[in-house]
Amino acid sequence: MLDEYRSRASFCTKRMRNIFEDEQSQNYRAKIWSVLDSKPIFRQSQFPITIDEYKYLTYQRSKELIKANLLTDDEMFDNPQYKIILEQCLAMYDSSCHAKYTLSMTLFRETIRTLGTQRHEYILNLDQNHQICGCFALTELAHGSNTKEMRTTATYDPTTQEFVLNTPDIEAMKFWVGNLGYQATHAVVYAQLYTKNTCYGLHPFFVLIRDPLTYKTYDGVEAGDIGAKCGWNGLDNGFLIFRNYRIPRENLLNKHGDVLPDGTYKTPFKTSNKRFGASLGALSSSRVGISSLTIGLLINCCTIAIRYSCVRKQFGPSPGIEIPVIEYQTQNWRLIPILASLYIYRHLALSVFDNLVEFYAISMSNNEDDQDLLAYMGRELHALSCSCKSICTWNTQKACQECREACGGHGYLYATGFGNIRNDNDPSCTFEGDNNVILQQTSNYILSNYEDIYKNNTSINSPFKSILFIETMKNTLRDNHCSITSECHIKDLLNAVDWLLCYILEKSARKIDQLTIRKDLSAFDLKNTAQVYHLRTLSIVYIQRTAIFRFLQYIENNEEMDDKCKNVLDKLLIVYTLKFLEENINLLFEGNYFNNSSINIWIQNRLIDLCHDLRNEAAALVDVFAPPDHILNSVLGVSDGKVYEAINKQIHSNKHTFLTPAWIKQDLIERSKL
Amino acid sequence: MLDEYRSRASFCTKRMRNIFEDEQSQNYRAKIWSVLDSKPIFRQSQFPITIDEYKYLTYQRSKELIKANLLTDDEMFDNPQYKIILEQCLAMYDSSCHAKYTLSMTLFRETIRTLGTQRHEYILNLDQNHQICGCFALTELAHGSNTKEMRTTATYDPTTQEFVLNTPDIEAMKFWVGNLGYQATHAVVYAQLYTKNTCYGLHPFFVLIRDPLTYKTYDGVEAGDIGAKCGWNGLDNGFLIFRNYRIPRENLLNKHGDVLPDGTYKTPFKTSNKRFGASLGALSSSRVGISSLTIGLLINCCTIAIRYSCVRKQFGPSPGIEIPVIEYQTQNWRLIPILASLYIYRHLALSVFDNLVEFYAISMSNNEDDQDLLAYMGRELHALSCSCKSICTWNTQKACQECREACGGHGYLYATGFGNIRNDNDPSCTFEGDNNVILQQTSNYILSNYEDIYKNNTSINSPFKSILFIETMKNTLRDNHCSITSECHIKDLLNAVDWLLCYILEKSARKIDQLTIRKDLSAFDLKNTAQVYHLRTLSIVYIQRTAIFRFLQYIENNEEMDDKCKNVLDKLLIVYTLKFLEENINLLFEGNYFNNSSINIWIQNRLIDLCHDLRNEAAALVDVFAPPDHILNSVLGVSDGKVYEAINKQIHSNKHTFLTPAWIKQDLIERSKL
Repeated sequence: MLDEYRSRASFCTKRMRNIFEDEQSQNYRAKIWSVLDSKPIFRQSQFPITIDEYKYLTYQRSKELIKANLLTDDEMFDNPQYKIILEQCLAMYDSSCHAKYTLSMTLFRETIRTLGTQRHEYILNLDQNHQICGCFALTELAHGSNTKEMRTTATYDPTTQEFVLNTPDIEAMKFWVGNLGYQATHAVVYAQLYTKNTCYGLHPFFVLIRDPLTYKTYDGVEAGDIGAKCGWNGLDNGFLIFRNYRIPRENLLNKHGDVLPDGTYKTPFKTSNKRFGASLGALSSSRVGISSLTIGLLINCCTIAIRYSCVRKQFGPSPGIEIPVIEYQTQNWRLIPILASLYIYRHLALSVFDNLVEFYAISMSNNEDDQDLLAYMGRELHALSCSCKSICTWNTQKACQECREACGGHGYLYATGFGNIRNDNDPSCTFEGDNNVILQQTSNYILSNYEDIYKNNTSINSPFKSILFIETMKNTLRDNHCSITSECHIKDLLNAVDWLLCYILEKSARKIDQLTIRKDLSAFDLKNTAQVYHLRTLSIVYIQRTAIFRFLQYIENNEEMDDKCKNVLDKLLIVYTLKFLEENINLLFEGNYFNNSSINIWIQNRLIDLCHDLRNEAAALVDVFAPPDHILNSVLGVSDGKVYEAINKQIHSNKHTFLTPAWIKQDLIERSKL
Repeated sequence: MLDEYRSRASFCTKRMRNIFEDEQSQNYRAKIWSVLDSKPIFRQSQFPITIDEYKYLTYQRSKELIKANLLTDDEMFDNPQYKIILEQCLAMYDSSCHAKYTLSMTLFRETIRTLGTQRHEYILNLDQNHQICGCFALTELAHGSNTKEMRTTATYDPTTQEFVLNTPDIEAMKFWVGNLGYQATHAVVYAQLYTKNTCYGLHPFFVLIRDPLTYKTYDGVEAGDIGAKCGWNGLDNGFLIFRNYRIPRENLLNKHGDVLPDGTYKTPFKTSNKRFGASLGALSSSRVGISSLTIGLLINCCTIAIRYSCVRKQFGPSPGIEIPVIEYQTQNWRLIPILASLYIYRHLALSVFDNLVEFYAISMSNNEDDQDLLAYMGRELHALSCSCKSICTWNTQKACQECREACGGHGYLYATGFGNIRNDNDPSCTFEGDNNVILQQTSNYILSNYEDIYKNNTSINSPFKSILFIETMKNTLRDNHCSITSECHIKDLLNAVDWLLCYILEKSARKIDQLTIRKDLSAFDLKNTAQVYHLRTLSIVYIQRTAIFRFLQYIENNEEMDDKCKNVLDKLLIVYTLKFLEENINLLFEGNYFNNSSINIWIQNRLIDLCHDLRNEAAALVDVFAPPDHILNSVLGVSDGKVYEAINKQIHSNKHTFLTPAWIKQDLIERSKL
């Protein structure tokens, strides 16, 4: 039945793939898949393994990947998108492996490179030659998001020219540090720098943790593994406690601040708003990475659920005749909007990555004239990446649960992969701050631009165009007549989307004004009191509207596009947009944009029709992005559609299937005495 | 801080507990907790164990529980609610243990008792003496919900007076059978009965699977473990394949149909609608059990998230001062509605259980005059239990994800328990049929009663009062003026709830009529085409409305209630009801019940105020139902609020924390050669 559904598609899968990825990138992706198919160590298990085994395997795999030299600096320079393809492919394969590899290849190394100076170059050499293994220690047990309140201290002692590191109590122990559990020998540690009885704030230090030749921790350092997590168990996350642990003065990564031998604190430049803006841009990089990781997992769960729904038959119009479950209204209404979100968010995440690349390109040119532009880009990128990461990770988390349930009881089998996808996607919802918390960064950005234009009379700088709408919002709001007609023109839907974003922004600004007038609220309380139903909604609507507009622009301006592909992509965009309007219908009524009560029924009918229509495109639409079977590793997602054979094979190849456990035998002895 | 929040509660926790559980039940619950605290075998791990270890442990625990004789038949007869308390407590402790114990104590035994006759009594004796271990085999690999299409055959051979069992192909193998993986020696197997070349449909057979003295499967039987699942891994779920496997004629459980030695098929009664109705009631029992299980897990995740939110401080109005995260609008708005759902759904599930008990009581009286009543009760119970199970399991699944995210990064630690709660609750969403599928049972029931009264002019029989609203719905719909005022009277909110249910029922009936007129749809297609936005919504709104009304009735009519408790419970009910209206606001606008566009803002403001208000009651509200620490087993949910100590202790008691794994040592040797 799967091939039958493939043949029903109105478009050519290969053409569709070419629209979203150029040949070079497709070849690079294929190369990664083939490396992951080339050695037994990469073969995936269909049975759970112990945490110890998993950690060992992950270590070995990560080592093999480093050896395979999948992405040289030169390659990355020529094809920045390779980095995101590599990360996504690894996440689709195994999140732990992805994390261990990425952490060792990037985070430690990049911090030394960015925040260290010439005197730290030897560290990079040691690292490159695998003589040491580094990690990055920022988060503490009681402080994650609020970095200013971190409490690990580094106190300068001029008599020995050393810093003395201390963890004041257990709440200040470093926690969650990736690779530190067992493997890391060295760390970048963030601590409050004290010299001459003054605290100069959080600074990064290069710290020796374990002797690389014995793997014993040094005296004064306690480090170990934090134990099991709900997923990512191939990665060894560690904790770190210091007790009067001394490191040389030179181990301070001193690019942004240094301590002279006599204890004098020195910083090369005054803190400026612009430097802050630019540094925000650099911080966006890991959120962009998470977005692409979560899209990879979304591809996996969509592929499994849609393929199985084309194959699984249940009930039918008459006895003995059963129909594939994807034919059921409930089933295609559950799955098609998820598929639409995959297309729209995949493009959104890539477009934000492109923005990041542009930012880095200008940043590297080191042109003085670009300082303003860089700051604007940095701030916009920060707003885009915070909200993009939030919306994408939440979407995958929900999609994964829906897909698993849509597969019925069998969806609960370990060998379907759903359990791992759900568990592995989950931390992304709180990485880099809980989504609800980082969404505040986005609304702060939008609001401050709103104030710039309407209160401070300055103009808007939006290099990535995501907030240009603020300039014209008064017109948009004035034109509050719903223009949606039964033809369902995408243009009319977009008008509604635009109106909605402007409406929630103005409502939020008004709310802040009302709260400000009360005068009993601090700036801190003020923002908190306007979160729910205002600022939080604003951030979410902003990024969804960005997703819709960027996708539309992409399909309108793509030269590769043939009519058949365009027709299907238009429908996916309409499904996504209708779902979006449906979710925000309260605001559309509240603001009188909708005033015809039948609009709800109209939206519902359109959605049902489109989901029904797209059920015949679904199998081909997942084929466009689906990884090979050895990566997907799911009995329900096999590309030949032979799911029952796959389950049967899995059972009969498991050495535990026909076991008589020792405890049963004991039972037997007891019983024979009866 | 946790005690601080406890002391802020306006009510007495003990009094509140007494409102929801009588002293006897509280004592029984305490007894279960104490049994689970009495032996080392029951001690919970804070680290994952291997599947083999888990299965062994579960087997031992289940054996100990059987020994502990926690619920005798007499006790259960006197206090039926003990059964549900026992199941819920076990689920809160460990879902696998709960399942293994419950399956061996009830499902097999009850089927033999209900569907067998005198000639099968020896089986019950063998089972009671633990000489055999039974299981229940219905589901096949390719057929779950659609039992009519099951394909295992039992063909009668009059020459030897045996049935010959066959599994025609792998799609027909029995699958998911609890306890069959390793332990079961005997099974109740459902197969299509063939005799004299005629198929008489699905019948239950008592079948020997493994020799109880050697644990080898008999020739002609293939049975084994289906492998790992996303949770419940302490339970051995099995599969079963027959190849010309012969069993004696007498092994047919022949209460509802028998085959004479010569092969003649005989059934004691004609199938009647009434018998069907009554048998539906009996089928409700396991859905009621699942509802109570999922409420247990909801208690656990609520307790963890709310306690940790009272303890965890992050950010604050000025440097150095941080406030507990429950003070944040976003945080209490996320958690308080979940807490409200716990109170409302816990009561709903118990009330449906009470309905079930009433049904059984009358059923056992065996009074001919009660046949009609039993049939009505059975059908209503079926509708109630299908929708109650669906709404409760979905709610817990969503709540669990929200609670885990609300705990930030630490929520992802294995030792918080969230991973297990989520994984263990998950199968409940598809047990006994995917929720979306079984919800159709509920809408069928409501619709057919609607047709009875408005088309067939017969009256409504609703022994449990859940569909009496149909009788007065025309009035309810006529009175479509929203009466909600700024005082937020619960009465006005309930009017809106009532109107909503009537509206979606009438809308659904109208939709079915429209589709019927088209004449191109079979009865089967007709219902499918009206699912989304009609029948599915109808079932959900029906059970939520039932939950609201039953809770209100309970707090209005409870003599134990003091004003302080009542005040808080009223607020919880209002939170739940406002959330319900918010979720269905599209229908309220569509039907012109809401026509003032500011109602949305009003609902939002009320919700935010109430969530803010109830944050000070939250710690005490979870204490009312929270299990002891040794059951909750969560570093973030400890009752003394010392979460960081608990995490530190967990790390330092884990033998894997300070390990240097063998693979690291190997790395070391390689490095020393550099």
